[in-house]
Amino acid sequence: MKCLVFYLYLQATCTSSAAISQNSTRDYSSVHTQQPAGPIREYKIDPYILLEDELKYVFEDIRQELHQGTNQQELIQIAEYYFDGQGKALRPMVTMLMGKAINYHMHRENSPQIVNAQRKIAMIAEMIHSASLIHDDVIDQSFSRRGKPSVNVIWNHKKVTQAGDYVLAIASIMLSRLKHDEVTLMLSQVLNDLVQGEFMQLGAKETENERFSHYFTKTYRKTASLIANSLKAAATISGADAPLVETAFQYGKNLGLAFQFVDDLLDFVSSSETMGKPAAADLKLGLATAPVLFACEKYPELNPMIMRRFKEPGDVEKAYELVHKSQGLEQTRFLARKHCLEAIKLANKLAESPYQKGLTDIMDLVLNRMK
Amino acid sequence: MKCLVFYLYLQATCTSSAAISQNSTRDYSSVHTQQPAGPIREYKIDPYILLEDELKYVFEDIRQELHQGTNQQELIQIAEYYFDGQGKALRPMVTMLMGKAINYHMHRENSPQIVNAQRKIAMIAEMIHSASLIHDDVIDQSFSRRGKPSVNVIWNHKKVTQAGDYVLAIASIMLSRLKHDEVTLMLSQVLNDLVQGEFMQLGAKETENERFSHYFTKTYRKTASLIANSLKAAATISGADAPLVETAFQYGKNLGLAFQFVDDLLDFVSSSETMGKPAAADLKLGLATAPVLFACEKYPELNPMIMRRFKEPGDVEKAYELVHKSQGLEQTRFLARKHCLEAIKLANKLAESPYQKGLTDIMDLVLNRMK
Repeated sequence: MKCLVFYLYLQATCTSSAAISQNSTRDYSSVHTQQPAGPIREYKIDPYILLEDELKYVFEDIRQELHQGTNQQELIQIAEYYFDGQGKALRPMVTMLMGKAINYHMHRENSPQIVNAQRKIAMIAEMIHSASLIHDDVIDQSFSRRGKPSVNVIWNHKKVTQAGDYVLAIASIMLSRLKHDEVTLMLSQVLNDLVQGEFMQLGAKETENERFSHYFTKTYRKTASLIANSLKAAATISGADAPLVETAFQYGKNLGLAFQFVDDLLDFVSSSETMGKPAAADLKLGLATAPVLFACEKYPELNPMIMRRFKEPGDVEKAYELVHKSQGLEQTRFLARKHCLEAIKLANKLAESPYQKGLTDIMDLVLNRMK
Repeated sequence: MKCLVFYLYLQATCTSSAAISQNSTRDYSSVHTQQPAGPIREYKIDPYILLEDELKYVFEDIRQELHQGTNQQELIQIAEYYFDGQGKALRPMVTMLMGKAINYHMHRENSPQIVNAQRKIAMIAEMIHSASLIHDDVIDQSFSRRGKPSVNVIWNHKKVTQAGDYVLAIASIMLSRLKHDEVTLMLSQVLNDLVQGEFMQLGAKETENERFSHYFTKTYRKTASLIANSLKAAATISGADAPLVETAFQYGKNLGLAFQFVDDLLDFVSSSETMGKPAAADLKLGLATAPVLFACEKYPELNPMIMRRFKEPGDVEKAYELVHKSQGLEQTRFLARKHCLEAIKLANKLAESPYQKGLTDIMDLVLNRMK
């Protein structure tokens, strides 16, 4: 019954009825999905179609901002290398989804000014994300990302570092043009979280308890903070009150954590062809993520390997094998699922709308994605 | 007569009469000065003493901000490495000097709120400067700075890069806490200029004309923009009108250009002991600054060396020698002097006060410093 209401609502309000798909397993724009086990749900929202108007030109508009900020062609070329439309655009998508769900909840859905500002936040979120990828790739000396040579393979590290800073500088300028102090503060805090998350990643922890809490904090700072604060910013721009802003933030935090847990899982199960980057990349970088930390409970011989950051010959292969022999992958999935359910609970506090439904439906994408 | 008026004024208003020195050649806090040729001026303002209250704890306060932003001790240690009080603190000093001169001009000298906000700008300016030094040192793989091992010698490049980003992130948070949209935009623009200046430095230009304009733009972006925009921000906070804000900006721009021209000159004349960094460092980095560009007019054999960025054996030594044989150093000094005189002209537009006099007197520091 609930689905039928949505269906009728959507027919009346939505620009594209293709946003509803009947239990399909087809590709989302650039995200593959699988149906989760459980009762079949008749109608599902495809947020990429629902938000087509807002998302269609998001990369083009980011590239335009990058072009306007300098006349140095090579700087632009490097800076826009990852804005090629091949990314999942998860951050812009979920920022717009929350923004519009909150606008609907607040009866603000018809304010182009609010939607425009939210769309800028969506762009800024993607730019901060991309700048951090560029810097990660220089620091980690990566080979490939999203199925193409990573940016540092093509240009030298000096230029690439500057290009990452350039993306951040343009994002800062866009942010200050929004003239919204609270929002500026939220996204400045994200920069601090990103740096600290990255710095935490450079050290290993002694005890198991410390390790899990270290991993959680790091995951929040490196991934969830940006999503949580972007959604918080979108809600703030809509004029939401404190509890509603907090709902948006907590939803984003749970989604961000779940997304990263799945990412850490996929590093063990996807082939490099599917992922567009080398398999077991984290182990090779010396990083112990959730699957290893869980596996460690059953195979304590992983402890010394974690401490030496998988640096001895055979460590990566052995750890990979033990993770697969343990329940580490299932436990990681369970953890991701727990945070998805929490996010759904939070989304259900908002007034019913296609966007609000989208906020619950995208949890399938998060949990069941293959890359 | 004018000097006597200042003297009496200062006795009445200034916390410390030591701020006036009688044609002395003694050291300024950490900046050595020489008296320029020309008529002896009886009373000179020492801005470091004049602004003692504001500057005394500026590094301590920056360190405190860095401590409050994280609980990762090593991150703090790296981030605060250059805030050891050994720097010239030129940016905080001149920001406060302009701020207070404008406050006086606007009859706002008694607003602690305005002075506090200007002091935050002064701190943020020093933090942005220091973050760029940290990143420069990683990129250039420096050995020493300010007479001690440079930051990248002590910690690995991953940690140092993150620490530079951390300083910027905390500066961004402090900036957004000021809740002044225009000021936020000014300092975001500085980040863009810094990146672009650094990127320009990675390329060489073919023709002489292009080279000079490239060098000027680069110098504005890498050095003058931060000073100009910090002073603009200090004036804006004081509530100055557009022409007055522009005066502050142009003063800062001229001072910044002059400061960098002298810096480029000192790279050829100071010993590494005085400078605290290797002599002819720019040539070794492949950079052709004003002295070389001027020398090139007399010695065209420098052209191919500039194009190959002094990479062949003997290039650095030969270029160094030709610069000294040419008029390049005198011409660079003349250029710096021209911008100092322009800055003095701008400072003279402001109402007379010890701060306004300080703005003219510091040109001696800028022009005649030995390190």
